[in-house]
Amino acid sequence: MAMELTPRSETDLDPVEALIHEFSRLPGVGNKTAARLTYHILNGRTELARSLSDALIDAATRINLCETCFNFTDLKICRICRSSSRTKDSICIIESPSDILSIENSHAYNGNYHVLHGVISPLDGKGPEDLKITELLDRLQKNSEIEEVIIALNPSVEGEATSLFLNQLIKPLNVRTTRLAYGLPAGGHLEFSDQLTVKQALDNRREWQS
Amino acid sequence: MAMELTPRSETDLDPVEALIHEFSRLPGVGNKTAARLTYHILNGRTELARSLSDALIDAATRINLCETCFNFTDLKICRICRSSSRTKDSICIIESPSDILSIENSHAYNGNYHVLHGVISPLDGKGPEDLKITELLDRLQKNSEIEEVIIALNPSVEGEATSLFLNQLIKPLNVRTTRLAYGLPAGGHLEFSDQLTVKQALDNRREWQS
Repeated sequence: MAMELTPRSETDLDPVEALIHEFSRLPGVGNKTAARLTYHILNGRTELARSLSDALIDAATRINLCETCFNFTDLKICRICRSSSRTKDSICIIESPSDILSIENSHAYNGNYHVLHGVISPLDGKGPEDLKITELLDRLQKNSEIEEVIIALNPSVEGEATSLFLNQLIKPLNVRTTRLAYGLPAGGHLEFSDQLTVKQALDNRREWQS
Repeated sequence: MAMELTPRSETDLDPVEALIHEFSRLPGVGNKTAARLTYHILNGRTELARSLSDALIDAATRINLCETCFNFTDLKICRICRSSSRTKDSICIIESPSDILSIENSHAYNGNYHVLHGVISPLDGKGPEDLKITELLDRLQKNSEIEEVIIALNPSVEGEATSLFLNQLIKPLNVRTTRLAYGLPAGGHLEFSDQLTVKQALDNRREWQS
């Protein structure tokens, strides 16, 4: 038996439905997940809702871009740029602030960063002038202690093109440019890897170091 | 080369890390998802953060339990209980408010609800007195128009035991009690179903109605 439910307008959302709606606007969060999160919050009540709400407002109002590396920060110059325990002789160029997190989590890099905030992508109407490229060249010219620029853009078509473009701009400045290695991911299987990955793993093969 | 990163204390979280931490406290949200949500919010900035924050505070401060069915609501009596277009002759008993959403989404039920807020579970120290059972019996005794009680608890061991317990309490009140059908889920495969589901599908088989 399929009965008609009371029709309700969009504006008539109660707070529960409103919160489900807000959660479902987040990436990767469907209606079911949004409902689960909402009921979790309602069961936990005020404390959980308040601390998440505070963190949201805090992040939205206090965060700006670091004047040096354009990472998200609540200061003028971010914690990484002002850290005295990091080496100042290398800059790692990445697409977006979230990439810093990935590199930091690898614990394999202790230099500085420069966030481009995108890659050159004519289809999306994004040219070199929309990225923090002028700022990067400025930074390289002003800081003679920078010896290496690691280009760590994502291996997409646009990322590759932007990497080539950057390499040509940086070359005249007499700074060593490197790029991340491509190959099999850790724990990866040859059988399940795409042909380009296998090709790159072969092309970039290394001598055994014993 | 594995270098030491600057150690930082828990209290020294910047707003980005704080928001990642808050998101990661939600169920099913790991550190990676929390970071993705945070960077999505930071890229969208103020509007998204503010509307989610408002919805959270709204839900936490304005939501209480409906005095009749114990669903979450921002009113004294919830919208379902006060709706004039819903039939008053049946009550569907469920474990938690989120179950109402599942049943409403099926568009197959237009009666009222009663949220138990849990099931009897001695291992978790939850007895009948911790559930809204007295309130349910009260409701059945006071409302002579209720003709059917649909027990729709989850088919777990505790849910089954609580269903039996409720059935025995409701029987003397001269109200018809029914329970949800068990069997193959829609789109389910016999091959991939567990043996209890197949047994129940066989035991509850029905005549072809042509």
